Order: sequence, then C-alpha cells, then structure tokens
Amino acid sequence: MISKNQIKLVTSLHKAKGRKRAGLFIVEGPKAVDEFINSNFEIEAVYGTREWIEFAPQILDFAEMISVKELQSISAQKHPNQVLAVVKMPETSTPPSEINDLCLVLDTIQDPGNMGTIIRIADWFGIKHIICSTETADIYNPKVVQSTMGSISRVQVSYTDLVDWLGEINGAIPVYGTLLSGENIYETKLVSKGLIVIGNESKGISDDVAFFISQGIKIPSYGDSETESLNAAVATGVVVAVFRQAQ
Amino acid sequence: MISKNQIKLVTSLHKAKGRKRAGLFIVEGPKAVDEFINSNFEIEAVYGTREWIEFAPQILDFAEMISVKELQSISAQKHPNQVLAVVKMPETSTPPSEINDLCLVLDTIQDPGNMGTIIRIADWFGIKHIICSTETADIYNPKVVQSTMGSISRVQVSYTDLVDWLGEINGAIPVYGTLLSGENIYETKLVSKGLIVIGNESKGISDDVAFFISQGIKIPSYGDSETESLNAAVATGVVVAVFRQAQ
Repeated sequence: MISKNQIKLVTSLHKAKGRKRAGLFIVEGPKAVDEFINSNFEIEAVYGTREWIEFAPQILDFAEMISVKELQSISAQKHPNQVLAVVKMPETSTPPSEINDLCLVLDTIQDPGNMGTIIRIADWFGIKHIICSTETADIYNPKVVQSTMGSISRVQVSYTDLVDWLGEINGAIPVYGTLLSGENIYETKLVSKGLIVIGNESKGISDDVAFFISQGIKIPSYGDSETESLNAAVATGVVVAVFRQAQ
Repeated sequence: MISKNQIKLVTSLHKAKGRKRAGLFIVEGPKAVDEFINSNFEIEAVYGTREWIEFAPQILDFAEMISVKELQSISAQKHPNQVLAVVKMPETSTPPSEINDLCLVLDTIQDPGNMGTIIRIADWFGIKHIICSTETADIYNPKVVQSTMGSISRVQVSYTDLVDWLGEINGAIPVYGTLLSGENIYETKLVSKGLIVIGNESKGISDDVAFFISQGIKIPSYGDSETESLNAAVATGVVVAVFRQAQ
C-alpha cells in the first residue's frame, strides 16, 4: 500500500521542478530498474507489482509491493511496466575545462527521445562527456532516462552556457559542427581530441555557437535525395561512427 | 465549423482499423502538410486554424477554417499545430521481386518514431524500397507520418510475410543483417545491390529471418562500452552510411 504522500512525491518527479526540489528522479520497467540497481546510483525506493517482486533478479529489502493500479498512479508512462524506482540524482557534473578525448556538445536538443538516444550513442562509442546548452532536454526527464537504456549511468552529462564555455576553451582544440555548409565528413581530417557540436532538431546550431566551429562537417546525402536532414540522433550516430573509424 | 461526422471520421484515422476502412490517413503541422500538398499524394481535406489559413504558403480552395478547440478535437497530437490534412492512402505497394539496388528489410520495427526515422534515413541515402514484416509499425500511424518529415512521399514501403518473400528471392542477392555475432562492418565486403535486414528493438532479428542472412554485420563499439546496443534507427543510419561510403 502506497501512501498519499508517496504518490505526491513520485508524481512530482515527472516534472523538472519536482526533481530539482527533491534531488530525485524515476526509472521504470524491469530492465532499466535492474541496470540502475547494479550501477553506482543510490536507490531511494523501489515500487514493484507482485509480478515483478516474485521474479526480481535480486532480493531487495527495500522494495515495496504495490498493486497495478497503484503503479499506474505514480508512473509517468501510459503503460506502466511492473516496477518504478526512485533514484538519487548524483551531484551536478561541471563541464570539463580540458578536452583530452572526443566530446559531444549539444546545442539545445529538445526531444527527450533524441537526448536519450544520443547518450546511448556516446556510451557505445566510448564518449565520456556530453556538454549541453542549458535549454537541452533534462537527462532526468523520465522519457530521457527510459531511452538511454542504462547508458546514463556511464556518461557524464553537464549543462552550461555554451558560449561562455566555448569562449574559455577557444582555440585549444578543434571544434567540429554539423552545418548545411559543412565539408563532406569523409573528406575532412578528423582528430581524436576535439568537440563535435550537434544542433537543435529544427533550428540547427545557433549563430552564437557556430562562431566557435573551426570545421563544419556534413554527412553527404545520396542520389537525388530531397529530404532536408537526418534526425538529430541519427546524424550524431553517423558522425561519431565516422570519427571513431578514422582513428 | 466542423461537423460531428467529420470529427468522427478524422478521429477514426488515429487507429489502423479506421485508416484501413477509409483508405485515408492524417498529417499534422504546417511543415508536414506543406510537404504533402506539394507531393503526389491526393489531399482529401485540410483543416486549419485562422493562424494557418492566413499564412498558408498556398491558396487552397478546399481548406476549411476551424477553431483551435476544433483542431484539438480531431488531432492525434497532445499539442496540435495549426493544421491537419486528411490524405488518401496510395495503393498498397508490393515488395520488389527483383533487387537492383540496396533495400532495407525491417523485421518488426515497433516504435513509430524509429519507423519514421528509418524512412527518413532511406530517403537521405537514396534507398527506394523498404520491405517490412507485417508486424512492423504502420507507416500511416500519425506518429510515423510525423517523424518521416515528408520522406514518406519518396520511399516505397511494403508489408509482407518476410520468410515467404526471402524464400522467393533466396540466393539471388546478398542478405546482410545486423547480428550480435556479425562481422565488423568496416572489415566486411559490402556490395551496392542487396538487402540489409534490421531487427526488432528488443528482440533483434527473428530466427526465421536470420536463416536467410548470408552475411552478419556489426557496428563495432569503442573502448570498454557496456551498453548492449544502439537504438535501431541509429544503427540503421550508421550501417546505411557505411554501405554508401563503400560504394
């Protein structure tokens, strides 16, 4: 049996404001919850239906059994899936002041699904840092958490004023960015230490940020393609794959 | 003013059953509607708010002005965006019996966002045909239509029993497929005429379909990545980019 206060707390975590106030976020579904239980994240509470509790991969003293209806009352999903965990937000990470590897810079990725997918791409290709504009989707948004498939526990994501930050590290390393006017990425010299800037889903990279780009790049289209662009997460995947292949 | 019958018809198109019965589907938002108006698709009706009608890129005799509230009553979106068009489904396309180029085969892509993104990838990389299992997300699902960003009008998508179809064309051309046991795609001989099979988001390629794969491929991960996989649409983007680059 879940109390009214618990319901109130968990549902407040559906929104950025509530998450910030409580310093907590939610993770849903057996697979994702299991990844978080096995990560360095601190688990605050686990609410599982009988189905989950009986088949849970590990015995959790603090897991609380709730009904399907109760799960529905706290879930951020249309079709809740057996279990919801409340997890402590780690301390906010600050953007690196020195770049020793390939890092992603997100200039206002807004779609939570794209954001989660990009974190998963970073994890796959061994990118340890993602630096985001302050308007980029919140990594603890339930939809982002869901689409990272656990990668969120292995990639450092920080939010900052990109123009200030890029100003500070200006000139020290190459800054690549996907631009319509960019050079064919397959004909561009790609290095293993630098920044790759990805722009907003509809507006691309803002002028203020584009100012810092030392090398514009573009994924060539094929044949008589009339489409304007690839999805932002797909473009990130292709670009990062080409960078890693070039090394 | 929109009639009760019009509301009933349009909302019936939110579901596959309604779309099949009426032979119609919906497209929403100024940009997508504009792409469809300028395509070969036949437009059955356009419902726009005053905001859209006044700034519409072209004069449409058949556009009907409705209120924001009326748009909400027919929209499939949480936040409707100025205009909704009702479009005629073209005749069902049959899968090609001969493969003269690179084609994508989708073994049950279920997420509408992934499906739309994959159609957009095909369009970008000049892939003309996508052959889908019958359980793959419906291209006329409003969420798919939305995420294709108009590419749906330029790529042929057909649905079929993949095992039967692959059996018919068996041996005639190479069949690549993304498999956990696949060869590093950068070390694989890639041809310009063949099939690329993409598996389901969580289950991958089914055994029945995997039987027809002549060459398993895999996008190599980097460093000590612990993530299990890339998102299906991102993997499709990377694989297709590598194929096109190899040609």
